[in-house]
Amino acid sequence: MTQKPFYLCSREYKPDPTVLDFEKVKVGTEQLLIIAGPCAVESEEQMSTTAAAVKAAGGHVLRGGLFKPRTSPYSFQGLGMEGLNLLIDAAKEHNLLTITEVMDLEHVEKLAGSVDILQVGSRNMQNYPLLRQLGKLDKPVLLKRGLSATVEEFLAAAEYILVEGNNKVILCERGIRTFQNHFRFTPDISAIPLVHELSHLPILLDPSHCSGNSSWVSTIAKAGIAAGADGLMIEVHPSPEQALSDGQQSLVPGQFLTLMKEVRKVAGAVGRTL
Amino acid sequence: MTQKPFYLCSREYKPDPTVLDFEKVKVGTEQLLIIAGPCAVESEEQMSTTAAAVKAAGGHVLRGGLFKPRTSPYSFQGLGMEGLNLLIDAAKEHNLLTITEVMDLEHVEKLAGSVDILQVGSRNMQNYPLLRQLGKLDKPVLLKRGLSATVEEFLAAAEYILVEGNNKVILCERGIRTFQNHFRFTPDISAIPLVHELSHLPILLDPSHCSGNSSWVSTIAKAGIAAGADGLMIEVHPSPEQALSDGQQSLVPGQFLTLMKEVRKVAGAVGRTL
Amino acid sequence: MTQKPFYLCSREYKPDPTVLDFEKVKVGTEQLLIIAGPCAVESEEQMSTTAAAVKAAGGHVLRGGLFKPRTSPYSFQGLGMEGLNLLIDAAKEHNLLTITEVMDLEHVEKLAGSVDILQVGSRNMQNYPLLRQLGKLDKPVLLKRGLSATVEEFLAAAEYILVEGNNKVILCERGIRTFQNHFRFTPDISAIPLVHELSHLPILLDPSHCSGNSSWVSTIAKAGIAAGADGLMIEVHPSPEQALSDGQQSLVPGQFLTLMKEVRKVAGAVGRTL
Amino acid sequence: MTQKPFYLCSREYKPDPTVLDFEKVKVGTEQLLIIAGPCAVESEEQMSTTAAAVKAAGGHVLRGGLFKPRTSPYSFQGLGMEGLNLLIDAAKEHNLLTITEVMDLEHVEKLAGSVDILQVGSRNMQNYPLLRQLGKLDKPVLLKRGLSATVEEFLAAAEYILVEGNNKVILCERGIRTFQNHFRFTPDISAIPLVHELSHLPILLDPSHCSGNSSWVSTIAKAGIAAGADGLMIEVHPSPEQALSDGQQSLVPGQFLTLMKEVRKVAGAVGRTL
Repeated sequence: MTQKPFYLCSREYKPDPTVLDFEKVKVGTEQLLIIAGPCAVESEEQMSTTAAAVKAAGGHVLRGGLFKPRTSPYSFQGLGMEGLNLLIDAAKEHNLLTITEVMDLEHVEKLAGSVDILQVGSRNMQNYPLLRQLGKLDKPVLLKRGLSATVEEFLAAAEYILVEGNNKVILCERGIRTFQNHFRFTPDISAIPLVHELSHLPILLDPSHCSGNSSWVSTIAKAGIAAGADGLMIEVHPSPEQALSDGQQSLVPGQFLTLMKEVRKVAGAVGRTL
Repeated sequence: MTQKPFYLCSREYKPDPTVLDFEKVKVGTEQLLIIAGPCAVESEEQMSTTAAAVKAAGGHVLRGGLFKPRTSPYSFQGLGMEGLNLLIDAAKEHNLLTITEVMDLEHVEKLAGSVDILQVGSRNMQNYPLLRQLGKLDKPVLLKRGLSATVEEFLAAAEYILVEGNNKVILCERGIRTFQNHFRFTPDISAIPLVHELSHLPILLDPSHCSGNSSWVSTIAKAGIAAGADGLMIEVHPSPEQALSDGQQSLVPGQFLTLMKEVRKVAGAVGRTL
Repeated sequence: MTQKPFYLCSREYKPDPTVLDFEKVKVGTEQLLIIAGPCAVESEEQMSTTAAAVKAAGGHVLRGGLFKPRTSPYSFQGLGMEGLNLLIDAAKEHNLLTITEVMDLEHVEKLAGSVDILQVGSRNMQNYPLLRQLGKLDKPVLLKRGLSATVEEFLAAAEYILVEGNNKVILCERGIRTFQNHFRFTPDISAIPLVHELSHLPILLDPSHCSGNSSWVSTIAKAGIAAGADGLMIEVHPSPEQALSDGQQSLVPGQFLTLMKEVRKVAGAVGRTL
Repeated sequence: MTQKPFYLCSREYKPDPTVLDFEKVKVGTEQLLIIAGPCAVESEEQMSTTAAAVKAAGGHVLRGGLFKPRTSPYSFQGLGMEGLNLLIDAAKEHNLLTITEVMDLEHVEKLAGSVDILQVGSRNMQNYPLLRQLGKLDKPVLLKRGLSATVEEFLAAAEYILVEGNNKVILCERGIRTFQNHFRFTPDISAIPLVHELSHLPILLDPSHCSGNSSWVSTIAKAGIAAGADGLMIEVHPSPEQALSDGQQSLVPGQFLTLMKEVRKVAGAVGRTL
């Protein structure tokens, strides 16, 4: 490639870190953003219990998927728009912000009007019509790295959002596909300092999805914060064994509380606050 | 994964190969399907010259991208719908079938009414709303493998089309991302016998995109046919040095003619016809 | 890397292909070299039966491992030097050449005096003391590509042999490690034209080791020959289900005969003879 | 694989962590082991200056390669045995332990009698004759992970040492080969908790080799310690721009001192001491 595929994302264009101000937390500063919640919205009780746990542990944003992109068409695909109020109500009850994934152009407007952050999943990192549409909003977008995207491709995907006018983009490393077994994906910790060197955009780490197993989540989370991640995205579920998707890697509220305590110590050691 | 993510695609469900009958050629039989043309539709002359060359060499389908998914938002994105007639007219003039990529739900209906085969690119292999929409058509779909998709994920993506009722699916291997340098992607020849073992769907090979260099295209094409591919998808451009995208790997008409002669010999050696 | 790590191996140094003359076959010409036999030498009967089958099908070289580098120390490690005469006698009985792997400096002299080709396995591709020692011999060396070596690293490893004075080097592609499942390794067909472009050394393909399953061996073999490989290295065993190592991917004599017939047709289609 | 390729290395065999007692530091406890020094021994002044810096910053072991396995035969290969006294004298002067890489069976005895820890490099992770020879010593061995070894293969390689009687093995993660660019290798942080789960052996992280650039070393080091690594192996050189190998990733003494201060904080946050 003779020319860099991104410019508005780059440090050359904007040397200072981009800060997204969510009042309770300013992402891109020394403050860490904690997003937590279940992979998929399933029920009122599930969301309410989780929201209470997220709040109690010090989290800022409640996550919950409405539309789940699944490898198999026979896996649970999410409650769809029916789940939206469950997410919103649980978050409001506990004074949390909200995030959910958008896969489909037709849902963009409705979701943008309802939640605080729109998420683009790994499979859609290069879904350009979707990225362009999100670029036309005045709404924070969390963009997950594709499972085999280089960091340059990742930033070029973000560029599709910025080029349309929306610079409220938060990146999220979620693990890459390698030959390695045991973990579902290999958490690419090196992407964190690399993104910080090349770009002014904040970058979070999702240690849950790559681990595929709750026992490793806290360790990977601590490594990510030590490497300079601007926050975490964690799967929390009140009863993982009954989860309709990704239960194996979900933390129960007590485990999440422990994770937060441990992460807080590491954050302090690298000059970050939580 | 405790359960296979595909069933309608599998040999268990349908032991015999799926055959797509395009009159001049029956894909999924001993006959090979040859798709050729430029990466992107650029002009009337470009399309007309290419179509003549494709026909003269024995090709069946004229390709030409209208909407080009590009890593960088600053790269040429295609002529869009304006290019459609250039594709159709050139193909009609030379009695060829047509294929083009669809990226956007809003274009599905229009394109399905205009071309013979709809292509889903690698970046959209897991764009489920798009796959489902294509599944509702009675139209052949060529589905390209994601750059890091396992063969099971590839078949599971096809399953999203079949499960909606459309079983006219042609798979296409286009190279995977590895540590290997020189080639843009590593052509995964092993995927061809593997798909044939697991599925009844036909599978083509695109040797152009992975090579990234015209000098290797013919060699990889021959390897693919020897490995049992049901056809090829080749980039041909009358003046590659002036191409607006992917010129480096495009063959000129004379090179394409040579490739076809060489491929024909290998096809004969493995009991296929061209 | 500012400077290419190989020179004596390169086309710049020597534009014409290196030819190794084994009387019956000249490797590096249009003639293909066929090496076949069991993964490990096990018994006189096994070697004799295999040698007869290799000869009957048109093979040139009998392979048989004496020292087997195995991932686990608890797997069968080979008969060691005790197996040497079993290999040599079976080959002589059927007028075949011999090849075996050398792992240890202390065995180099003895093996070099006994067999026709010394093999360096993938795990030892960068065992520089071993390569240098082999470079001091006047003996053909077959060097297998490391499972994650780039083609440049592969040629740089060969350079360690050439730089010591021995230019009788045959390269062998044996599959690379990728995320791909099903196959043990992904056969990297692209390495064949790439090596031919960068180097004058001949390159074979081992389709057995990467397949890990006898049903795919013939298909991958044909793809390799179509891509320009200068020969094949195939695992053949009279009773694979009783093999002490790698039985799953070994062909029985009848399957090997069929493979050779099929490969001969593809060879003819690309101007090679067998 | 139906049977695990390692047993003596496993937690099933020995639930408690293996501790190597070097008097000043007990590896495998809460204490971290810090190995630092140049890639290659070059001169008396280089070694003396470096040793002073390593000691001043709190390091325990002085590293320095005598025999450098290099991709190209034309790169600097190390001073060989001539460098041994430079390493030993500099370490003694500053009361440091010593480590150097052994590549060749013939050097094992001499080096084992001279240094405190013998290192096996990535390229030799599966050099079984070498591993077995080291297994017969009563000497600590630091075994580096192969660039594409799975964690199971890594432990199986260690098993070759343990099975011969030597259980003083320290593992070292040094980055894996992926499609990722920028970093020379992708530091696989997930290997650290995984090794700790599967094995009782201690595991260090080498953040220098994978970074390939001094600016990233400290960040990756902190991530590794946060993930539970039992120590670090760092490249330090008094004048990296003049280093005969790997200068780009070497820290100068001042940078190493800063790294140690930062790492110490993270260590404290995860209950480790330095």
